[in-house]
Amino acid sequence: MIKFDKITIIGVGLIGGSFAKGLKKAGLVEEVVGFGRSQSNLKKAVDLEVIDRFTDDIADAVSGSELVFLAVPLGVMADSFEAIKPHLAKNAIVTDAGSSKSSVVLSAQQALAEKFSCFVPGHPIAGKEQSGVEAADEALYVNHRVILTPIEQTNQTALTIVEEIWSLLGANVEQMAPQQHDEIFAATSHLPHLLAFGLVEMLHEHPELGNVFHYTAGGFKDFTRIASSDAEMWRDIAVYNSDAIVKWLKNYGVAIQQLAELVENKDAEALYNLFSEAKQARDEHILQIQQN
Amino acid sequence: MIKFDKITIIGVGLIGGSFAKGLKKAGLVEEVVGFGRSQSNLKKAVDLEVIDRFTDDIADAVSGSELVFLAVPLGVMADSFEAIKPHLAKNAIVTDAGSSKSSVVLSAQQALAEKFSCFVPGHPIAGKEQSGVEAADEALYVNHRVILTPIEQTNQTALTIVEEIWSLLGANVEQMAPQQHDEIFAATSHLPHLLAFGLVEMLHEHPELGNVFHYTAGGFKDFTRIASSDAEMWRDIAVYNSDAIVKWLKNYGVAIQQLAELVENKDAEALYNLFSEAKQARDEHILQIQQN
Repeated sequence: MIKFDKITIIGVGLIGGSFAKGLKKAGLVEEVVGFGRSQSNLKKAVDLEVIDRFTDDIADAVSGSELVFLAVPLGVMADSFEAIKPHLAKNAIVTDAGSSKSSVVLSAQQALAEKFSCFVPGHPIAGKEQSGVEAADEALYVNHRVILTPIEQTNQTALTIVEEIWSLLGANVEQMAPQQHDEIFAATSHLPHLLAFGLVEMLHEHPELGNVFHYTAGGFKDFTRIASSDAEMWRDIAVYNSDAIVKWLKNYGVAIQQLAELVENKDAEALYNLFSEAKQARDEHILQIQQN
Repeated sequence: MIKFDKITIIGVGLIGGSFAKGLKKAGLVEEVVGFGRSQSNLKKAVDLEVIDRFTDDIADAVSGSELVFLAVPLGVMADSFEAIKPHLAKNAIVTDAGSSKSSVVLSAQQALAEKFSCFVPGHPIAGKEQSGVEAADEALYVNHRVILTPIEQTNQTALTIVEEIWSLLGANVEQMAPQQHDEIFAATSHLPHLLAFGLVEMLHEHPELGNVFHYTAGGFKDFTRIASSDAEMWRDIAVYNSDAIVKWLKNYGVAIQQLAELVENKDAEALYNLFSEAKQARDEHILQIQQN
């Protein structure tokens, strides 16, 4: 049975906070120490009993900690690895929740150097409409997928322990290579987000349509929900998973060009086939989700 | 006060059925006659008290009717106008619920000829996840927008009466030119639907990603919800509003190309500005909807 005397959460928001809360509720940890950019947020986290205490001294936060969880924006991952490195205990395990994995693995290699093997790259596929530590929820990860992307140098024991922690939080843990992760999530998550941002921005920039949003209905609202996501987080994802995203944006551009040709030619049969194939694929996919 | 002895619903599904049910519940009509492709569907509509009776004789359906409501796919609008024309009573009003308006106005002009002025083109912006007469709901149009797109030849009295009917059903009625309607809905409704179908189809066609849908989360589910829409209806919309849709697909293609360049150049500042502008536009838009 896993049991920690001290763990450290770097970045105590929805993701870090839910992780901490889950471990505390499960009685798996004696002390959770929070570290982050905002003192008022960390105070709130203590008030909400998400963490036990916080500090603005990274040495204090990390020293003696058996598990360091990085739930910070991709843009500050590299700095975070550098900051924690000198204070990492001999047997400390480091893991993260970044939505792009190749870039995080690379930063960790560069910053952690000889200590790199203690790092287990991870990505919990969970979220909520609300963000911030107020929304932290010990059940956030229950029945959600967590992708771990170890590489050859990753310590096997560290990997097993991180896997076990996520399982104890109720998650379904899978493993794949960082590049495969980035490719899949560029297609299924990053691309749709960029497409939604792009659509809203385009309509916003065509004032000749009048107050175009006035005429939108439920379909538009659903389609663009993800365009209300955090701009900073998505800027970082676009920058740190740039290669895979560009590839899928370009693939999509070609698909849209082909679709425009079918519409221009009023090719009713090809359009019907495309729409019904897509509908069937999505309906089956939703059915699978509901059965799981 | 409007009061009809007989009205005719051509196409008794969610839209036609909800219209009929609303008028019956409001006591505005003595007899609602249904006409449509499927006898079993029409029988169901009688059982559900959505219509009073049905017939497979278009002369019987339309003769003496004061209001004929066409709630059929765009692909059968032209044939429907031709079928009803010989039987239209002198003072009959014809209106429709087609999602594209220029094409419907053109079919009506061609088929109704000298009787064209009795036709009031309309588009109720309402729907549900469920379709079919089983989902018919007298409150479907309450607080929903209905766009009427009369042209110069449209009879003013007919227009006023159709406007009043929709208001009595609780809808907010607006008027605009058919071309403006088609332009706006190509951008805000038809484009997002085609984008969602296009994304699901593209992912479905890339088996090298593995079971890619396996890794999707809530954002993807929302974004692609409209890809589970009826393929026949969307084929018709794509064909009958082809010009405006092609224009917006191409505009969007350019926007996506520009976005791909920003991602390729890792232009963090421009990406942040684009995402936060889009987020702000959508958040304001949702706020407006909630306040209405």
